[in-house]
Amino acid sequence: MATKPSIPKGTRDFTPDEMDRRNYIFDTIRSVFRLYGFRQIETPAMENLSTLMGKYGEEGDKLLFKILNSGDWRQGITADRFAEDSVPQLTNRICEKGLRYDLTVPFARFVVQNRDKIQFPFKRYQIQPVWRADRPQRGRYREFYQCDVDVVGTDSLLSELELIEIVREVYRRFGIRVSLHLNNRKILAGIAEVIGMPDRLTDITVAIDKLDKIGLDNVNAELLEKGLPCEAVDRLQPILALSGTNVQKLMALRQILAGSETGLRGVEETETILRLYAGSYADAASSDVFRVELDLTLARGLNYYTGAIFEVKALDVEMGSITGGGRYDNLTGIFGMPGVSGVGISFGADRIYDVLNQLDLYPAAGNAQTKVLFAHFGDAEQLCCLAWARRLREQGVNCEVYPDICKIKKQMNYADQKHIPFVAIMGSDEMAAGTVMLKNMLTGTQQAVTKEEIMNCIS
Amino acid sequence: MATKPSIPKGTRDFTPDEMDRRNYIFDTIRSVFRLYGFRQIETPAMENLSTLMGKYGEEGDKLLFKILNSGDWRQGITADRFAEDSVPQLTNRICEKGLRYDLTVPFARFVVQNRDKIQFPFKRYQIQPVWRADRPQRGRYREFYQCDVDVVGTDSLLSELELIEIVREVYRRFGIRVSLHLNNRKILAGIAEVIGMPDRLTDITVAIDKLDKIGLDNVNAELLEKGLPCEAVDRLQPILALSGTNVQKLMALRQILAGSETGLRGVEETETILRLYAGSYADAASSDVFRVELDLTLARGLNYYTGAIFEVKALDVEMGSITGGGRYDNLTGIFGMPGVSGVGISFGADRIYDVLNQLDLYPAAGNAQTKVLFAHFGDAEQLCCLAWARRLREQGVNCEVYPDICKIKKQMNYADQKHIPFVAIMGSDEMAAGTVMLKNMLTGTQQAVTKEEIMNCIS
Repeated sequence: MATKPSIPKGTRDFTPDEMDRRNYIFDTIRSVFRLYGFRQIETPAMENLSTLMGKYGEEGDKLLFKILNSGDWRQGITADRFAEDSVPQLTNRICEKGLRYDLTVPFARFVVQNRDKIQFPFKRYQIQPVWRADRPQRGRYREFYQCDVDVVGTDSLLSELELIEIVREVYRRFGIRVSLHLNNRKILAGIAEVIGMPDRLTDITVAIDKLDKIGLDNVNAELLEKGLPCEAVDRLQPILALSGTNVQKLMALRQILAGSETGLRGVEETETILRLYAGSYADAASSDVFRVELDLTLARGLNYYTGAIFEVKALDVEMGSITGGGRYDNLTGIFGMPGVSGVGISFGADRIYDVLNQLDLYPAAGNAQTKVLFAHFGDAEQLCCLAWARRLREQGVNCEVYPDICKIKKQMNYADQKHIPFVAIMGSDEMAAGTVMLKNMLTGTQQAVTKEEIMNCIS
Repeated sequence: MATKPSIPKGTRDFTPDEMDRRNYIFDTIRSVFRLYGFRQIETPAMENLSTLMGKYGEEGDKLLFKILNSGDWRQGITADRFAEDSVPQLTNRICEKGLRYDLTVPFARFVVQNRDKIQFPFKRYQIQPVWRADRPQRGRYREFYQCDVDVVGTDSLLSELELIEIVREVYRRFGIRVSLHLNNRKILAGIAEVIGMPDRLTDITVAIDKLDKIGLDNVNAELLEKGLPCEAVDRLQPILALSGTNVQKLMALRQILAGSETGLRGVEETETILRLYAGSYADAASSDVFRVELDLTLARGLNYYTGAIFEVKALDVEMGSITGGGRYDNLTGIFGMPGVSGVGISFGADRIYDVLNQLDLYPAAGNAQTKVLFAHFGDAEQLCCLAWARRLREQGVNCEVYPDICKIKKQMNYADQKHIPFVAIMGSDEMAAGTVMLKNMLTGTQQAVTKEEIMNCIS
């Protein structure tokens, strides 16, 4: 006997029950995206490595899954070269393609490559798997889905508002209470400026990003360790200590950033976004299911964000960010198309899956499920069931006729395991009477029904 | 400036218009699968090469996309070994994983690996891309979707009936006239037996598979060339010449195959399937949109089929098979789980896409589309539009507010390009009157409507 087969570590099979739940997530997110006029695209799983390499930092390059060239990939590589080249050099010789690492870079590539076919402002969403050769661990996979929504070709802050509305509506539909953390790259740049360290933006944001986790003292220690002068760290303190409402924080920031044009623009953008949002929702300041919170410690993926930065956290579950994104002014620049501003967010389907599981928020089995199983006592009864099933299907009801001739108990067990809510049992008496014995698997009640009656009884 | 980016040959980007059409195909197929109680699974894009290798023949092994091991893949391979090993040996050393080549082998692997979690008979469908390093050509891609539906764990011929019904219903919904060709591996084996060549089944079926394309004389020549004795080829002639209705062909086959137990069982199975099908549809024998035709020349993928074999062709378009499949008695045997009979078919989404395009059978834009674009003359008007849009969205209407402040003409053009059927124009007069000027983009008519009236006007 062959050994039991397995799948690569960090990847998963999804059973029908799991797929029902995942489809519920994708369908919910998709329908909200569509409500705002976003349209779907798909890109290939494989991209040229020239498209992917260098876009995710040195670490990212290593985490790309690379595809071995087809045919005689060894051709032209001598044994000397094999021994002397570095592994990355050799990899480059034998692999031209890799699996996509996220949906953002392929999207930028798509926009540039299809610029003549698309209409700007281009509102697109994309729901596809991505692959990363990360060390697998709990909640981190080597294949996982991203659900991205972006608009490119406009710098209107209405787009930021739309994304906030989308986040709010998606989590309202899921029933997950969340807070949306909002920051702005220009505010961060302004902070670096006013403390006299405009070149140390990355070090500063990397350190203050950890404020929640390691506390103020450790953040300060890290900043000093990285060579920031005491004076700069001192100047940073009132900023790190900012508290109060969003309005209070912004008022304080206006004072603090008075010397930085960039910083003040960031404050202004943030004020506009929050004002638009308050105009949209009467409960904007007070909702306890959805909060928008100005959070100066938020930096994520700073490398390409240029304006607003978003991150969403569930309020009732310990879990990292479940949605995040921001504005980028030059994503397509790397592919030779400068000056296209865009803003987008990405929903993490796998983490949302875990949150819904932990909070037990999944709806009862949906319309993908079989509604009626026809069980029967023999060949003639089975044939009779076929006609009944055909009739139900014509009315759009998902149903099954048990394929084998076997004990009713086994057939009932099948319905049970498959969570089928109704079993219609066909015996010789029922056949003669033109009825079927319809059993409600939830309540256990049963009654004889005719072909005319059955639709009403299962609705 | 960077060079214009591209994607690997044989792969495709899908624009929003293309995605609408593809989703129409997937949604239609999926809803019919569900009507019959099939449930969805997904498997990882990457499988261990040990799962994939040897399952698709020697040619198939070459067409697998292989994933380079992560990290230092060169470790342990000396320059000598690099120079002296064969390319497949070396590949084996540096690659553990590959991209799935079809959905059948991963499904068999899934069933064996998850046998404790699933309920038999197991009715599953799977709609995912597969990858093959084939030479790209018109209509053949290196990444394409398959839509597979299978039931395993029963040998009931009701399952064959269900698959035929599914094919009929799917193409009825598409509006594509098709014929379903039906054969049976046992009949083919019987034929080889009665002409005295039981060991030459593959040669015989490969040759007669070409009857349509190269004609009878060439088929006979090929058989002789392959070393079949004249006498055997002579005995084959009445079989190749079989004509008439399915019933007539089966009656003739009963005579011809009288000496082969296997052959007669194939005839019987086919009779049962056709009888079940005739019982289901009053027009079974005469429909001119869906025909079931016994076709002895049909062999496809003979290697693992053991009973019924199906293939579907569009009647009004020159195109290869658009759907195909059959029964297999031992698919999971390769993974150590013998005795699980199953039957399944696969819909080729890309070919169906081409057929629908050629016959111009796509429905008008569906519910994924934006229904209303709010266009406006300035900032105040744009803000006002937000409230209108919010109200429509609460009623489930997909709509957009144009994000930039710009000429109405540009906004109208955006709606036009995006096939948005209604534009609601907001000027200062409308704002003052609490109305919006609603333009029907199809008819060109326009009228002022209130918030209360707009829903009726766009339905």
